[in-house]
Amino acid sequence: MKQMEEMILREGQVLSDDILKVGSFLNQNIDTDLLYATGNEIARLYEGCEITKILTIEASGIAIAAAAGMAMGVPVLFAKKHRTSNVDGNTYTASVHSFTHNEDYNVIVSRDYLHSDDKVLLVDDFLANGHALRGLIALCDQAGAEVTGVAIAIEKCFAGAGDKLRAEGVRIESLAAIESMSREKIVFRS
Amino acid sequence: MKQMEEMILREGQVLSDDILKVGSFLNQNIDTDLLYATGNEIARLYEGCEITKILTIEASGIAIAAAAGMAMGVPVLFAKKHRTSNVDGNTYTASVHSFTHNEDYNVIVSRDYLHSDDKVLLVDDFLANGHALRGLIALCDQAGAEVTGVAIAIEKCFAGAGDKLRAEGVRIESLAAIESMSREKIVFRS
Repeated sequence: MKQMEEMILREGQVLSDDILKVGSFLNQNIDTDLLYATGNEIARLYEGCEITKILTIEASGIAIAAAAGMAMGVPVLFAKKHRTSNVDGNTYTASVHSFTHNEDYNVIVSRDYLHSDDKVLLVDDFLANGHALRGLIALCDQAGAEVTGVAIAIEKCFAGAGDKLRAEGVRIESLAAIESMSREKIVFRS
Repeated sequence: MKQMEEMILREGQVLSDDILKVGSFLNQNIDTDLLYATGNEIARLYEGCEITKILTIEASGIAIAAAAGMAMGVPVLFAKKHRTSNVDGNTYTASVHSFTHNEDYNVIVSRDYLHSDDKVLLVDDFLANGHALRGLIALCDQAGAEVTGVAIAIEKCFAGAGDKLRAEGVRIESLAAIESMSREKIVFRS
């Protein structure tokens, strides 16, 4: 999506080889014009796919998922993160490793809100190593729900997880796909 | 807002004298028709107030703030929760006590995104004891920003904090204001 790429070039800050700061418009301060366009673009990409539910993960995926859900007219479910494994029995749970904090955490959703007849669109702000996304896929597998596809605001293609998941048959649509980045230059996949 | 009250009556579960479960439509699984209407209603209530920024708190305030932000055409900033006080120097920080988890946590926003010329609308899903809301007000005070008002999806009026804040001069608009509730009956403020 042109608008996302332009915003990254204008506002994004490459802090290191693999850290892109987008807090000014995407994941702390949210530009709502861009958010609205993002929701509409995700709806366009998955038009006709009969999505019944969007699943995301707290916290920075929620706004994007909400915008897409309103554009598509489907409910949005967000998985919660817990550090402990002490969760009640009425949940689906998957373990995710966080490189950022170098610890494992659980992603959790209530069984009440994810069902075997759901066709699920997974939404998140970033896709890099794919750990969070694999956690969400595991939750859908436990529920017997179909993962129809994935929509990501910014994919770090150089981290490799997106292409690996595509090779496994997962449909992934990234609104901005970064092939390489440095302080001097950001190159998008064409 | 009629639609919010009706949804509470149809889907809400009163688990105890002060716990109302709304996970099926508001704070875990999100009904996006209701969310869209909620955003529009908040925009209507604060029309002409020249709001420059919406401030909310992760995680369950984000979707409502995003809907309102898109309806109003203003950016949305969300404060993060941290258990520790080890935060970098470029932040505004306030301590909040959580009754649910019986612990204190910090709410934090970057100084980059909240300024002295901002006219801020605070948004959250629930208002009960008001601790989270006072934390957000403290962040605005630190930034020298004006708190123009507050929009809440569901206020538990019986908890008292909303009326106390109103008496202090804070404008609070609640889309559903619960005067009293029990397993048998929910009474809204008229």
